[in-house]
Amino acid sequence: MKTPLHRLHSLISDLTEAKIDALLITKPANWYYLTGFTGESGALAVSRKGTTLITDGRFMVQGRAETSGVRFHEQKGALFDSVGQFFKDSRSRRVGFDPTQVTVGQLQSLGKAAGRSVHWIPAPGRVESLRMCKDAAELAQMRRAAILAGEVVQSAIGLLKPGIREFEVGAEIEYHMRKRGASGPAFETIVAFGERAALPHARPTAKRLRKNELVVLDLGAILGHYCSDITRTVYLGRAPKRVRIWYQAVLEAQRAAIAAAKSGAACGDVDRAARQVLTAYRLDHLFVHSTGHGLGLEVHEDPRVARGQKRRLEPGNVVTIEPGVYSAGIGGIRIEDDVAVHAERTEVLTRAPRDLIEI
Amino acid sequence: MKTPLHRLHSLISDLTEAKIDALLITKPANWYYLTGFTGESGALAVSRKGTTLITDGRFMVQGRAETSGVRFHEQKGALFDSVGQFFKDSRSRRVGFDPTQVTVGQLQSLGKAAGRSVHWIPAPGRVESLRMCKDAAELAQMRRAAILAGEVVQSAIGLLKPGIREFEVGAEIEYHMRKRGASGPAFETIVAFGERAALPHARPTAKRLRKNELVVLDLGAILGHYCSDITRTVYLGRAPKRVRIWYQAVLEAQRAAIAAAKSGAACGDVDRAARQVLTAYRLDHLFVHSTGHGLGLEVHEDPRVARGQKRRLEPGNVVTIEPGVYSAGIGGIRIEDDVAVHAERTEVLTRAPRDLIEI
Repeated sequence: MKTPLHRLHSLISDLTEAKIDALLITKPANWYYLTGFTGESGALAVSRKGTTLITDGRFMVQGRAETSGVRFHEQKGALFDSVGQFFKDSRSRRVGFDPTQVTVGQLQSLGKAAGRSVHWIPAPGRVESLRMCKDAAELAQMRRAAILAGEVVQSAIGLLKPGIREFEVGAEIEYHMRKRGASGPAFETIVAFGERAALPHARPTAKRLRKNELVVLDLGAILGHYCSDITRTVYLGRAPKRVRIWYQAVLEAQRAAIAAAKSGAACGDVDRAARQVLTAYRLDHLFVHSTGHGLGLEVHEDPRVARGQKRRLEPGNVVTIEPGVYSAGIGGIRIEDDVAVHAERTEVLTRAPRDLIEI
Repeated sequence: MKTPLHRLHSLISDLTEAKIDALLITKPANWYYLTGFTGESGALAVSRKGTTLITDGRFMVQGRAETSGVRFHEQKGALFDSVGQFFKDSRSRRVGFDPTQVTVGQLQSLGKAAGRSVHWIPAPGRVESLRMCKDAAELAQMRRAAILAGEVVQSAIGLLKPGIREFEVGAEIEYHMRKRGASGPAFETIVAFGERAALPHARPTAKRLRKNELVVLDLGAILGHYCSDITRTVYLGRAPKRVRIWYQAVLEAQRAAIAAAKSGAACGDVDRAARQVLTAYRLDHLFVHSTGHGLGLEVHEDPRVARGQKRRLEPGNVVTIEPGVYSAGIGGIRIEDDVAVHAERTEVLTRAPRDLIEI
């Protein structure tokens, strides 16, 4: 995917408004978004005068091949000393940086190397706020990543049988992703059987699956740099009445939140739509996390679909909708899909059946 | 593995010496090392008065099960607001933090929440410096992780044949790791064919293997939380003379560095041992990175085996030794093993043949 130049232009016009001469970008997802550079170490300087990547010898050849219209500056010694020196030499006066991404030590190195002529201005989330609205090419890529996740979760469900271990299912899941071209999982795959399904963030263990256990599979693939994220819950055996009712409640909560996730809706209202359904079932106290999160080059990004979030959804936003209930006695039930917000409709990107599967 | 209490004791006696009342620990590998907690979000406060984990609702149950002698404090609102408030309430005056791990924004939140009575003292690398010397249980775990990596690299070599794609080999490698119980790769597996082997940090692509190409496989497994890291280089076909000579040079450089990696040796001298061999072959200009790095809970940790490093190796240190040469025309050759430094000998943890393999 060729990196569109208008991203840099939007960023630069934002900077001008904030009276910032240049912006320092230290997060790989952000420099990839703006330039296409996939190296793991470096820093990007963006200003009206041009775009410069400061990186080390390992990434110079690769970087030149991946980008266009970007200058390269080879780092000498420690990265942040070189970056500070670069801004000094380029006579920048007010340099924006993201205080959530720059460490105390890095800012100190920058200050020392750049001297007093450079002022460091906190400018959080500038690139992240552009990244929230995906363009057509990004949406196409996210659709592919989401479809892949749906296929993988379905093939993983096919493997479930008594005696299989959590980490074996995890291994198969990530293997299938990669065989289909994913560069890897978007996060550590969650495979949780029985009681362990009560932990929303369970890592796969050697536990073996037994009859009459719930199974939570939560996985995502990175495909062409973009992430997907899907969760399905399965019952091994014939589900008891309580599990059926709880599953139905979570499914209804998810449907309500997806229906609420329209352009113009406040994220907090989308969260509330899920929570209200669970309240009607008297299960809201078992829903211990937020309804969802933005998805894109990173698996957790803005906007957050959580209680009280006032930000309104806009066309191009992609978020997960993933209500769940957790109880130490029973395990957990979570259903998660990825949705893209358009002006006139909401598109569910992940495609896998959502009804309770009993094996 | 039960977390030994003496780690906390050593840390606390170091703090007392530095006149620090309490230390804030924000890196997961560090809190795991000290307490056994495997949650992904939180902060650890260590002081003479006790050890407290501040974390959110998702991790409270799991955290109590994983630790002993640790108090839990449930986070209210944003993590760093809760952490600042905690130090204020516990009447800490001088709180150490790692400026390389705390962001500018986090320090600001801490300061606001804790008020003026708490002073924030930069105290970098306190836990990392303990982690450098592995104890017997850690070494036993690292041996298992290293042996697994050796087995996986050998089985991956068995898959190499014309037409196979880089990412297919990558998928098989990570699948084998997981099937043998690894929680995942220690880093993004490198599979580089032909010209692409000239990039020391190549990510697997759809490129197919052809006859008469070099193959670099660089992989590591996380097993029981500890990392391994191994590289082997293979030639598909009968290697031309230049490749044989270069391979021999890299192998001799690696042997020289392993021989130099004794307790008491300066890390810079270990690096120089490899470089001198390559200089004798007039290949030193093609060796564009350092000789190695520390290995443990993280795949890159102290000590660094690099030019000019004055730190001396001590018993319990585990480092990689991985010289390589890279040339745009030919590709790359790198040979990497993990070694543990003991008082009287150096142990190579990875076990896979190192001679040039021609397929």
